[in-house]
Amino acid sequence: MGEKLYTVVEDGSIVTPQGFRAGGLHCGLKKTERNDLGLVLCDVPAVSAAVYTTNAFQAAPLKVTRESLVNGSLRAVIVNSGNANACTGKQGEEDAYRMRALTAARFDLAEEDVAVASTGVIGELLKMDRVESGIAALPEQIHPAAEGAEAFSQAILTTDLVKKEACVAVQVGGKTVTIAGAAKGSGMIHPNMATMLGFMTTDATISPDALQQLLRSTTDLTFNMITVDGDTSTNDMLVAMASGLADNDTLTPEHPDWEAFAAGFGYVCQVLAKAIARDGEGANRLIEVRVAGAECDSDAQAIAKTIIGSSLVKSAMFGADANWGRIIAAVGRAGRPVNPETVDIAIGPIAVLEQSRPLPFDEEAALAYLQGDTIHIDVHLHTGSGSAVAWGCDLTYDYVRINAAYRT
Amino acid sequence: MGEKLYTVVEDGSIVTPQGFRAGGLHCGLKKTERNDLGLVLCDVPAVSAAVYTTNAFQAAPLKVTRESLVNGSLRAVIVNSGNANACTGKQGEEDAYRMRALTAARFDLAEEDVAVASTGVIGELLKMDRVESGIAALPEQIHPAAEGAEAFSQAILTTDLVKKEACVAVQVGGKTVTIAGAAKGSGMIHPNMATMLGFMTTDATISPDALQQLLRSTTDLTFNMITVDGDTSTNDMLVAMASGLADNDTLTPEHPDWEAFAAGFGYVCQVLAKAIARDGEGANRLIEVRVAGAECDSDAQAIAKTIIGSSLVKSAMFGADANWGRIIAAVGRAGRPVNPETVDIAIGPIAVLEQSRPLPFDEEAALAYLQGDTIHIDVHLHTGSGSAVAWGCDLTYDYVRINAAYRT
Repeated sequence: MGEKLYTVVEDGSIVTPQGFRAGGLHCGLKKTERNDLGLVLCDVPAVSAAVYTTNAFQAAPLKVTRESLVNGSLRAVIVNSGNANACTGKQGEEDAYRMRALTAARFDLAEEDVAVASTGVIGELLKMDRVESGIAALPEQIHPAAEGAEAFSQAILTTDLVKKEACVAVQVGGKTVTIAGAAKGSGMIHPNMATMLGFMTTDATISPDALQQLLRSTTDLTFNMITVDGDTSTNDMLVAMASGLADNDTLTPEHPDWEAFAAGFGYVCQVLAKAIARDGEGANRLIEVRVAGAECDSDAQAIAKTIIGSSLVKSAMFGADANWGRIIAAVGRAGRPVNPETVDIAIGPIAVLEQSRPLPFDEEAALAYLQGDTIHIDVHLHTGSGSAVAWGCDLTYDYVRINAAYRT
Repeated sequence: MGEKLYTVVEDGSIVTPQGFRAGGLHCGLKKTERNDLGLVLCDVPAVSAAVYTTNAFQAAPLKVTRESLVNGSLRAVIVNSGNANACTGKQGEEDAYRMRALTAARFDLAEEDVAVASTGVIGELLKMDRVESGIAALPEQIHPAAEGAEAFSQAILTTDLVKKEACVAVQVGGKTVTIAGAAKGSGMIHPNMATMLGFMTTDATISPDALQQLLRSTTDLTFNMITVDGDTSTNDMLVAMASGLADNDTLTPEHPDWEAFAAGFGYVCQVLAKAIARDGEGANRLIEVRVAGAECDSDAQAIAKTIIGSSLVKSAMFGADANWGRIIAAVGRAGRPVNPETVDIAIGPIAVLEQSRPLPFDEEAALAYLQGDTIHIDVHLHTGSGSAVAWGCDLTYDYVRINAAYRT
């Protein structure tokens, strides 16, 4: 993703693209006084697209959102934290539909203009009286200014330690187009919560097919290349909304500035994905695994994700241990073609394996490098030109502590 | 596996089947004074078979063992712990061949009568002077009595807390046939060690093809259904040797007592596999997951292994938390067909989900059950008749501590 095709907007947020407002409040779904209900609102019908969890048990809000997106257009997304509304049967579905209807009525929209997302405990019914009073109070909390995006970002968090936002500007046919995103990760303080939610806004004019295609392909290289613990939530969802208010010629893959737009879109998704990995439950550090020289990109992706998902690699990184035996063992069990004689491995600047043979290295230097807050693992297979990058985090005592906590 | 087809031999070991002797000693590959070199010896050529790790980076001893097994017969297996002889290049291969040659010469065998297995640190060369002096001293340590099996069992352990042995007797055509096994698991105290080794002995007369086929099919239902941390070693190996000294008619799948022999063989493998899971690194308890009602056995196996491999399920079990949301999320991401509306889940005697709907349950009773040393998780999908059982362990602070330890 070439840096020069877009400009990072340092203090940008999901309301920076023209036409978007956002906000959030506390309605009582979380036990603490933190925000637990949020809304992104577009002043005009936004060309919209979404991707969803591959888990067979999809939560009720995903069903409702799919229905709203049949016509490829949205005006708003209503989101709650504190309850995933998953495995809640018919009542859960009715609650998700009602959440959509209440939002539509309060903001004078059609029901199919509203998407619904939830994150929190699985298997408990939503307290709909609190959701209802929250939606009733939402309009005065919705702002086109940064404070609205801030309140929204707080409302979607569960146990995330930091909010995750990014924004870029791109030139499209001489017009400035802005792309922004906000996301929450799969941090868990209360067990049963493990959801990635992402919300992308842009003021670009873009065809619905092009947006859906871009969202899918970008997700595969960003959000789908992170892992915290290998568990896939029932509620994962990424929604993109394009207001068209930048007034550019409609973007399609044939547009001369498509590459720049896709690069900017990819940058925002990558920043959010890396932020989620870094803020994984209990994590001390971000781990970035780059695999090169595979037979194809798909092989490289599978190998990179196997390394980043290995509990042994993750606990070695927690212990700042340059334990390359675990890395090569993960490469070997990924189920993709590798030549056992031609593998190079480097941990940051330190080459530890060359042509599958151990290299002597300075353990003190390795220890110092591994105590940093970002660790790069480079693997070169020397069998082709496929490559991939994946992101994850270390496995710590805190991960076990957080997830062993008895539900209270 | 029907209980009545075989009799458990309570104090049996790998030397209980006729014709086998074993032993072990400390030659200096481990830093402590514990045994680190062991041998199983058969007085006659034993019909033999083996299965190996699927990891692409197979350690040198596996290559040597494959060569020895080309003719389907063995007299001995030499095993060291403390060093895996993996990722050690040409020198490592030469060392594995030399280990075989030294053993053959010392016990007056042909080289192809000897299999070699190693477990321990990856990427370091074997201290061959110590191996050589150890092999020279081995003959006086080899016994047909239980003390020989005990010394062997100690020699193959790395960080296992307990030795793992089992033995049964089966009637085959009026003759008593004995089947025994010893194994080590993937406990890790020194990082870089993670190997499952298993050694089966029997005095049955059995055709080589039948033994290989039985070993493969039994492994799929026992050793291949356990997971400690999802990482597959470079050194996993399971070897079976049949002396034929029970003097029964040759066993093949057509033999009228084949079912009894296979049941006894399966029982021994299952006991060893469960013992490895229970003694997983840092583990407090054994978890047994039973999946029923899947479309086929293969689907049930994949789903059972996804549940038992989930870090979230494993940490909930450590915390004695009846967190069924994580179990159903694991079912849903296994990539096999499930009907989201028809899933039942029980944790021990406590039904928590019926037809995908949460059941009220007594949290205190669940907590008491989950604090036991064996936990059963039953999942019924109600879509077919496929079933499977998998075994694993909880994810604990000690797992992280053990695997974060800096290599020293």
